[in-house]
Amino acid sequence: MNMQSNMTSQNNSITDLIHIPKEIVLASSSPRRKKLLETLGIEFRIVHPSVDEDDFTNHEPIEIVQELAYKKAKEVADTEKDSLVIGADTIVWCEGKILTKPINDEEAFNHLKYLSNRTHSVFTGIALIDSDTNLSLVAYEHTLVRFRQLEDEEILAYIRTGSPFDKAGAYGIQDDFGAVFVNKIIGDFYNIVGLPLTLLYLKLKEFSKNYI
Amino acid sequence: MNMQSNMTSQNNSITDLIHIPKEIVLASSSPRRKKLLETLGIEFRIVHPSVDEDDFTNHEPIEIVQELAYKKAKEVADTEKDSLVIGADTIVWCEGKILTKPINDEEAFNHLKYLSNRTHSVFTGIALIDSDTNLSLVAYEHTLVRFRQLEDEEILAYIRTGSPFDKAGAYGIQDDFGAVFVNKIIGDFYNIVGLPLTLLYLKLKEFSKNYI
Repeated sequence: MNMQSNMTSQNNSITDLIHIPKEIVLASSSPRRKKLLETLGIEFRIVHPSVDEDDFTNHEPIEIVQELAYKKAKEVADTEKDSLVIGADTIVWCEGKILTKPINDEEAFNHLKYLSNRTHSVFTGIALIDSDTNLSLVAYEHTLVRFRQLEDEEILAYIRTGSPFDKAGAYGIQDDFGAVFVNKIIGDFYNIVGLPLTLLYLKLKEFSKNYI
Repeated sequence: MNMQSNMTSQNNSITDLIHIPKEIVLASSSPRRKKLLETLGIEFRIVHPSVDEDDFTNHEPIEIVQELAYKKAKEVADTEKDSLVIGADTIVWCEGKILTKPINDEEAFNHLKYLSNRTHSVFTGIALIDSDTNLSLVAYEHTLVRFRQLEDEEILAYIRTGSPFDKAGAYGIQDDFGAVFVNKIIGDFYNIVGLPLTLLYLKLKEFSKNYI
């Protein structure tokens, strides 16, 4: 992988196992995805996609997240040269419907009250696209998340922190309150934060075989 | 809770829900536990216990972690006044045996090779002790962790980062490589890092009723 000369061996050694002779571009505006991708010690650039996350043609959650992840990656791949573009999209799904990012206190309260004492699903789609060849790969991860019974005063205190408003489902499991709303998860933790690291690593490894 | 005047409302609001009129002391030398407890926005001091983690009388993992968590908290509670002391102990358990912190490369390799393509358990015991009344509470959390099939070169690269050596089971799920070794978990994520936040929060809330 290029552009890693300034990183320490402790941080970049994971990239020694993946050989991608292109610049890696993350097509995402999410600060949490940026932080998670940095965890892997991979050098990358960020380009913000302008894809409308409410505009999709599929109905099933695993199809929706893969459709949107591909759209984000493709939009960016169309403008960047010599790049491997990573797109991702995450939805919170509970009993047949998507819980969006809340637009106000009331919607945040309703989302969290609804999630209380229920199990919901988090789906993330990822897409890899080579901007020169348009070769692509899409995949998804699915995690079950069980919320404990929340007290109204806990929900209200969390809303006062402002945390719910940039997050699908109105919570972040990596936040102070979000962390203690969750009783149990089944699946990949980082998927809930917005980027399933094990899946991404395995798919980057698979995709890198195109460059041998 | 006392001593929170210098914290922002965004960070300390979780503590508004727990009323403990004592100084909180974390009886742990783990930097990861310190970081996780900070996530809750709780003000606390750290005192390092000198308890021998290999010295316990119980045999079952849920008993061992609670015994050691209590011992750590008790040792510190005996020297601190006006405090609520939190002790914790985590073990990695696979097919009837404890996987300790590895002492050299070879042991780290053997631990990780053994965890590869297997499901293991992580147990954390927590203990709360009021240093004045000796009133106490112990509890535990249990999480199942599934490792994917690891390649030897992945294990060797992880060992070169130095990460395995201060960690039970020779991995950290919050590390670069550790994160991508794990396929799936069932239970609480923060338990794997060393401090089950939801359990701790609920037990602090329960314990705080002693102060009403």
